[in-house]
Amino acid sequence: MSEMPVQPTDEHARLVADVFARACTSRVTLEHVTGRWGTLAMVALLDGTLRFNALRRRVSGVSEKMLAQTLQALERDGFVVREAQPTIPPKVEYSLTASGEQAAELLLRLIDFVEERMPEVRAANARYDEAKGR
Amino acid sequence: MSEMPVQPTDEHARLVADVFARACTSRVTLEHVTGRWGTLAMVALLDGTLRFNALRRRVSGVSEKMLAQTLQALERDGFVVREAQPTIPPKVEYSLTASGEQAAELLLRLIDFVEERMPEVRAANARYDEAKGR
Repeated sequence: MSEMPVQPTDEHARLVADVFARACTSRVTLEHVTGRWGTLAMVALLDGTLRFNALRRRVSGVSEKMLAQTLQALERDGFVVREAQPTIPPKVEYSLTASGEQAAELLLRLIDFVEERMPEVRAANARYDEAKGR
Repeated sequence: MSEMPVQPTDEHARLVADVFARACTSRVTLEHVTGRWGTLAMVALLDGTLRFNALRRRVSGVSEKMLAQTLQALERDGFVVREAQPTIPPKVEYSLTASGEQAAELLLRLIDFVEERMPEVRAANARYDEAKGR
């Protein structure tokens, strides 16, 4: 995706990219993608380009400020593109980059898995609470 | 995995399991799995059963309290099993359930993706910051 000459630092970057290491920047990036709003925003954008307010309606419950921060972090990481049309009023649209699409596909699989598993999860919750006498 | 008679409520559960709906319990479960420590703990357990302190060393940076809370939520959801051996002092071990293993595999793919992408992410970060004059 990137056309920048990353080769010189590539080997180094690979060596240090370990989300288990507390100081690794990859952990921060993982959190942008897996964060509560990051996950939902990216998967919502799998359906195509969306304007800010449409995205906010889709990601039910997110505040304007939190969604803006989430999108900014994802844009900075190269997963989301923000395009402002020079209209009056300006029309701001968000879409996934190729890299963002790949990440979103992986997130969607996780969401599908969790949604499918909810009957078992609820049963496990009930068993756990009963065992703890709640 | 579950042997409980979930059929009667299964259809209903499927209908309501939508992480995009703010009140859906599946969103809470997704957050247990994708949360900062949930992700790392589950992927760490892919390598096998671990005692609490070994897990804490692996998930560098987590506090004792946060890891305990994280594991409790994952145990309650049926993704992690906690086994206390009746020894003195008691030996407490954690492992993944079959369902937890499936979730952890999906998380691992996401982690691998992010780690592989870090050179591009760092390049995107630099471009973004330069464009913003930072």
